[in-house]
Amino acid sequence: MKKLKGLKCVSCGHVHAIEMIYECEHCRGSLDIIYDYESIFTENVSDHISEGGIWRHRSLLPIAANTEAVSLGEGNTPLLRSTALEVEFDQAEILIKNEAVNPTLSFKDRPLAVALTVAKQFGVEGVVTASTGNTGVAAAAYAARAGLPCRIYVPKGTPKEKLIMMEMYGAKIELIEGTFSDAYLVSGQEAKKNGWFNLTSTFLNPYAIEGDKTLAYEIYEQYGGVPDWIIIPIGAGPLLVSCYKGFRELQLAGKVAKLPRMVGVQAANCAPTVQAFEKKLKEVEPWGYSNQTVASGIADPLTTYPQDGTRTLTTIYQSEGCGIAVSDESIMHYQKWLAQKEGIFAEPSSATAIAAIEVMKEKGFLQNGDSIVTVVTGHGLKDLKSIR
Amino acid sequence: MKKLKGLKCVSCGHVHAIEMIYECEHCRGSLDIIYDYESIFTENVSDHISEGGIWRHRSLLPIAANTEAVSLGEGNTPLLRSTALEVEFDQAEILIKNEAVNPTLSFKDRPLAVALTVAKQFGVEGVVTASTGNTGVAAAAYAARAGLPCRIYVPKGTPKEKLIMMEMYGAKIELIEGTFSDAYLVSGQEAKKNGWFNLTSTFLNPYAIEGDKTLAYEIYEQYGGVPDWIIIPIGAGPLLVSCYKGFRELQLAGKVAKLPRMVGVQAANCAPTVQAFEKKLKEVEPWGYSNQTVASGIADPLTTYPQDGTRTLTTIYQSEGCGIAVSDESIMHYQKWLAQKEGIFAEPSSATAIAAIEVMKEKGFLQNGDSIVTVVTGHGLKDLKSIR
Ligand SMILES: [Zn+2]
Ligand SMILES: [Zn+2]
Repeated sequence: MKKLKGLKCVSCGHVHAIEMIYECEHCRGSLDIIYDYESIFTENVSDHISEGGIWRHRSLLPIAANTEAVSLGEGNTPLLRSTALEVEFDQAEILIKNEAVNPTLSFKDRPLAVALTVAKQFGVEGVVTASTGNTGVAAAAYAARAGLPCRIYVPKGTPKEKLIMMEMYGAKIELIEGTFSDAYLVSGQEAKKNGWFNLTSTFLNPYAIEGDKTLAYEIYEQYGGVPDWIIIPIGAGPLLVSCYKGFRELQLAGKVAKLPRMVGVQAANCAPTVQAFEKKLKEVEPWGYSNQTVASGIADPLTTYPQDGTRTLTTIYQSEGCGIAVSDESIMHYQKWLAQKEGIFAEPSSATAIAAIEVMKEKGFLQNGDSIVTVVTGHGLKDLKSIR
Repeated sequence: MKKLKGLKCVSCGHVHAIEMIYECEHCRGSLDIIYDYESIFTENVSDHISEGGIWRHRSLLPIAANTEAVSLGEGNTPLLRSTALEVEFDQAEILIKNEAVNPTLSFKDRPLAVALTVAKQFGVEGVVTASTGNTGVAAAAYAARAGLPCRIYVPKGTPKEKLIMMEMYGAKIELIEGTFSDAYLVSGQEAKKNGWFNLTSTFLNPYAIEGDKTLAYEIYEQYGGVPDWIIIPIGAGPLLVSCYKGFRELQLAGKVAKLPRMVGVQAANCAPTVQAFEKKLKEVEPWGYSNQTVASGIADPLTTYPQDGTRTLTTIYQSEGCGIAVSDESIMHYQKWLAQKEGIFAEPSSATAIAAIEVMKEKGFLQNGDSIVTVVTGHGLKDLKSIR
């Protein structure tokens, strides 16, 4: 594809050709797709308006114009004004971007729809992923839609609702003793051995994470501009980084003048990136403690790839945003609060994005007139353990 | 509202004023809202394009132009081409309208968003509903969004995932010994006693079911015309009847020439309306047998309101459609098949809409060149009993 200039290492800057690779050949840094924006922005973008959801933004995805999308109708999720939150926190404007309203009930449908479409472009014979749950569910569904076999490596504590979904979609599930980082290692070996496409979230698959940019395009269109803050629950943090990349592209295209301040939220019980932010460090260190939290979807200690946390931390600094840690007690409180006040049932990992507003307020990050978009990343029905 | 001409009894034709009533004062027949279509079609409809989902069609809903919608971003669900189904059944064109991609994961978000908006218009102090599950979940969520208390009467076998959701949204749940028909009676008494709005699905609430029409408008826009067949799982059948009403409105507006043939699907173990169709009867009789089926969402024996089945049966006849019964075995088969072949996880009640195609083919209803839209009404994650 002419519009893709290459895969640039975020650590050493080396640019690689567009191939099925996952890390820099020199320094093992994670990769970022670079585009020939000039040619894209002069293209007639309205050509893609007839395609729904994320595919309206196909020109800014690593997909050729004539490639058929592997789609289940992902994206175009609701952006809802929350008067209840505005009153609760005395803020001028709080909106919720509800990513639970996606085909497999989480934002992961954006990157996985893109990843499976790329998988077909590369002509692979199967796909592999490590997952704490949502990535696996989305991978399984989109692999089914693409007609490709799918193998998923999950840590043993993965919510059973998510396991049931993966199984229904016909994926082969491997339960791994240990944390997500252990599943990450095994899945990487497996992908290499078979030549299957590795869909693992984190920043491993540089194609998948481009799908996350569509969150930015939709917020811009639905909000009618750029909010002051965007709050996003983070494990490694690809959604936060890609969302910011999306806004930078809108800036390059001359559509927006300012950029949003990005807030990364983690559970206090597993908060490697937030800890680094609070200590004003430049690099994230692996989380050395237990990682027990109700927010299983973002409980990533970054044991073997702390540099992924650093990539997210760097974006938080660049955007003049912040890292926020929230307690399990507060997560459970705001999960219930959000369902009962606004009719939105978020999974615990997503309720962190509501709980974070309280902490931002306490710590003095917010002015009353600030506008906030907070992202509910997944549906509560996918993780019932803490409720039961 | 000037655009509403009244509530017309579908049995005796008597027209009542627009009030909070549920049945004909003369014959207890169910009511149908009649509109002043001439004034609506001359209105500038593009005024509502900026509102998303079902609210783009606000002019054809019983909602004043200036009433704020009680919305969670419902509607605008994916319409997906299914090559796998086309191959399986040797049909030219089969598409799936996936209503599981709604805020509370079923099509019920359409009627309940409308019902709660009407509840605010009427200024009621609370809402009540009987439910086999999906209506209750949607009622609870939209009542929370509207800031109104909600009481839900459900039969004891209701899937626990649905009960958990209702509870999370803060509704008060009353478990009723017996079938849905028993819950129906108790909820009606409760609504009357307190003056609360009765949201019960079936054809009881004439405002709620208008929300179902938006399914037709979306199919028309997304498909780019009218498919030959539309397949819909039915209990009492308001979705089928309202969807057809929506297409008749498009015909009145001069947008479409032909109308779709409507297919109502029931589980063979609880199929009062299909039985009447097969016997070529004009009226539906209550289901006199056990109603045990995996398709709990549509297992309505119509014990105390067989006339609701008759209203649906009449629409099926008018549209030159058909009634189709499917076995529990076939439902379970196609639920798994759909998830593994297309990445769509439907609840058993919705998998009936896939299983029905096989029966239609066997019975000679289908020509190879026919186009079919089949409606997946709710998400599989909401009803895991049969999978566990
Ligand atoms: Zn490098
Ligand atoms: Zn009457």
